[in-house]
Amino acid sequence: MSSTPASAARPSVNALAAPLVEALAAEAVRLRLAVTRAPDGSRLIDAGAGARGSIEAGRRMAEICLGGLGTVTVAPAGPLEAWPFTLTVHSTDPVLACLGSQYAGWSLADEEGDSGFFALGSGPGRAAAAVEPLFEELGYRDSAERIALVLESGSPPPASVTAKVAEAAGVKPADVTFVYAPTQSLAGATQVVARVLEVALHKAHSVGFDLGAIVDGIGAAPLSPPHPDFIQAMGRTNDAIIYGGRVQLFVEADDADAKGLAEALPSTTSRDHGAPFAEIFSRFNGDFYAIDKHLFSPAEVVVTSLRSGHSHRAGRLVPELVARSFA
Amino acid sequence: MSSTPASAARPSVNALAAPLVEALAAEAVRLRLAVTRAPDGSRLIDAGAGARGSIEAGRRMAEICLGGLGTVTVAPAGPLEAWPFTLTVHSTDPVLACLGSQYAGWSLADEEGDSGFFALGSGPGRAAAAVEPLFEELGYRDSAERIALVLESGSPPPASVTAKVAEAAGVKPADVTFVYAPTQSLAGATQVVARVLEVALHKAHSVGFDLGAIVDGIGAAPLSPPHPDFIQAMGRTNDAIIYGGRVQLFVEADDADAKGLAEALPSTTSRDHGAPFAEIFSRFNGDFYAIDKHLFSPAEVVVTSLRSGHSHRAGRLVPELVARSFA
Amino acid sequence: MSSTPASAARPSVNALAAPLVEALAAEAVRLRLAVTRAPDGSRLIDAGAGARGSIEAGRRMAEICLGGLGTVTVAPAGPLEAWPFTLTVHSTDPVLACLGSQYAGWSLADEEGDSGFFALGSGPGRAAAAVEPLFEELGYRDSAERIALVLESGSPPPASVTAKVAEAAGVKPADVTFVYAPTQSLAGATQVVARVLEVALHKAHSVGFDLGAIVDGIGAAPLSPPHPDFIQAMGRTNDAIIYGGRVQLFVEADDADAKGLAEALPSTTSRDHGAPFAEIFSRFNGDFYAIDKHLFSPAEVVVTSLRSGHSHRAGRLVPELVARSFA
Repeated sequence: MSSTPASAARPSVNALAAPLVEALAAEAVRLRLAVTRAPDGSRLIDAGAGARGSIEAGRRMAEICLGGLGTVTVAPAGPLEAWPFTLTVHSTDPVLACLGSQYAGWSLADEEGDSGFFALGSGPGRAAAAVEPLFEELGYRDSAERIALVLESGSPPPASVTAKVAEAAGVKPADVTFVYAPTQSLAGATQVVARVLEVALHKAHSVGFDLGAIVDGIGAAPLSPPHPDFIQAMGRTNDAIIYGGRVQLFVEADDADAKGLAEALPSTTSRDHGAPFAEIFSRFNGDFYAIDKHLFSPAEVVVTSLRSGHSHRAGRLVPELVARSFA
Repeated sequence: MSSTPASAARPSVNALAAPLVEALAAEAVRLRLAVTRAPDGSRLIDAGAGARGSIEAGRRMAEICLGGLGTVTVAPAGPLEAWPFTLTVHSTDPVLACLGSQYAGWSLADEEGDSGFFALGSGPGRAAAAVEPLFEELGYRDSAERIALVLESGSPPPASVTAKVAEAAGVKPADVTFVYAPTQSLAGATQVVARVLEVALHKAHSVGFDLGAIVDGIGAAPLSPPHPDFIQAMGRTNDAIIYGGRVQLFVEADDADAKGLAEALPSTTSRDHGAPFAEIFSRFNGDFYAIDKHLFSPAEVVVTSLRSGHSHRAGRLVPELVARSFA
Repeated sequence: MSSTPASAARPSVNALAAPLVEALAAEAVRLRLAVTRAPDGSRLIDAGAGARGSIEAGRRMAEICLGGLGTVTVAPAGPLEAWPFTLTVHSTDPVLACLGSQYAGWSLADEEGDSGFFALGSGPGRAAAAVEPLFEELGYRDSAERIALVLESGSPPPASVTAKVAEAAGVKPADVTFVYAPTQSLAGATQVVARVLEVALHKAHSVGFDLGAIVDGIGAAPLSPPHPDFIQAMGRTNDAIIYGGRVQLFVEADDADAKGLAEALPSTTSRDHGAPFAEIFSRFNGDFYAIDKHLFSPAEVVVTSLRSGHSHRAGRLVPELVARSFA
């Protein structure tokens, strides 16, 4: 499979996301966000914790997460009769947008204080720090003067976390923006469902597919109604993808590899497929890491080989499980 | 139920709509609008009376109506097989966008002259005048230097109406823009169908639901083909919503209230449900006010309680009545 | 039927497309395009030959083709279960956008050199040259300082072609931008499928319908997966329209004419309807001009008479032929 040559110019995900972050802050009243500055100067945009936020705020968080390399739109119909409002995620550079930026891969724990704060950092700021081994594989590190991170969290990070983030990214705390919202909020639920394409990319990576061969991609999943309970809220956003998500990938690979990827990708490949996520979570006594990681992928995938022109399909939507989860 | 605190910053619907109004005027040639100045200096944008206008002009009129607080998009598919092109309306602040701005609630009659002019004013200019009792309930009055009103009308307002509008809004006639198009035009039909979410909000208000508890909302309805006869044209735009419209509301309310709202909202609750609107209108000998007002609401609604996470459904689409109406 | 008066202001398709062309060039890295200058100063934007390009690049090429008079969007669902991702094309001025700009009607052959270069020029630059007889019928010639042409081609034009283009348009070669991508590429396939509305307009013209009576239009067709073989690639983009495309036109015409247009438009009217395009092409031994030209039109059409309000339907989608073509 061909890979993008290392010498090819790569976009700066932080530079591309910066105007989206500034627009989010500038339109805070309209989007019902609370924008504050922490004592260390970092900017905190609350999109669903104390602030009401909105689906639109979540949609924009998702486009920030994609590092300005993708679009997220809301459509009035998808494959699910009962849950028609559907997010479409499209990126011209899905590997960089989803894995290099959107993936919630940066573990941010308060190791100095006693706040107990923990969140997984997502968004373009990850690529400026590039502390995750994934960035070596991607051959990408962003050079940025200002960075943004998105947190699926009900509270902003403490100063110790901001300091760690700023240092790793080579910027001052005042140049860091955190946008945060809990999974239970409208914005939180929306930005997680918008990971439908990222989840496919992440699974492609985990099954060893050459990321350089993934050329384009589109995904769609139903808007998940928020739930006040964290487990149920997380369950719904996962179910939107696992039982209601569809992805099409375009790969520079021959049929055998494209077919192999298609068959490996969907959630139907998982031994845990078949129940709403919150039920599975409870079956494993809340041990997230006991759940089969192959479950975290879209319900249905099409992988189109650009070499042969053939499309390979696998998986299937399970509307009744989405219905049970969202009820 | 919780209400937005009176002290919370509120967006200015006129300020947010102003760039949309300027873009409409600047792109008049492309959108096939006629832009003129009345002798009193007010700007008149004809989007479908003498000018041809377009669906796109109607879509933009709808976004102006929403006071810059919402988006209206065209999708290639919705729930109706035979009438697939569908408008989606989304607002981060549906109460303010739809009731504070879009609702056609300002009665504008020529009381001085003999023009017989009458139209219901819609759009952000209403909030600057705030002459309707609704604004007291909303606790909102916009302070604006320039205002815009949208009229479902085949003619521009006479000077006496403009004078009344300007005075009520505290601006000069030259700071007033009217965008008008009759129901029979492409733009007129489009901007009325885009009221699918507003109609739900208005009914929520009329059944006494706490507006402060309505947090987010999305609606969709099929594009209605224009009809040269006013009654038929009005009938179709109503039927698009009454028999083809869907809305999802997200409310900060407990299950009993959310369920109550869901059950009260859809058009199926009306004694007059069951025939195309133009037929009902004729059954009542053209007496609009004899028609059950509960008919004016979307066909199908989902109300999601953000307190419980449960979604409550009521109503149903009636594709065959849309088909009969649009034929 | 009424026609737009010759004196009406007409938009400049090159002026409206210019910012879209500049954005394409400015965002080349993000969209994976290669932008170069030929020795004669003309700008060459490779969107799928040597450069990878993307579906998004093709979507933007299509909006450039429409002369800034239309939008192309990607939806997660259309009428085809198995190929849900769908392009929607909408223009407020479909005749000018599609025939005056998007139609691939300018035959550009290298008549001086021995390159063998041949491509059909599409996009706003055509209207500045206006060498095609069609422009006389349209009563339109654009006056432009800079022009852009889109080519469904795997290579840029040689200097002799650029010189001919520049001279015909009255500009210098340095003021010409060519955006090119082969049918086999993601961008190429996308921009061709986005011709679903144009194909209907072209057929309306070829059956003698008064173009001045066509007021508005929307079309939709499934995204076609690229194929490395040119014939198969071309076949798929055609099949997306011929068997999977839908168009609604709004016409200022009476019922007899609207019905006549509806019945004349769809691909079902063609004697060659019934097999994937590549099979038909091979049946005629690759002689494109032996194929019934009535085949090149959307599968299903609705024509709405703005005079009567009635809508006339003809044709039908053939999902199984799309499936056979795209497999």
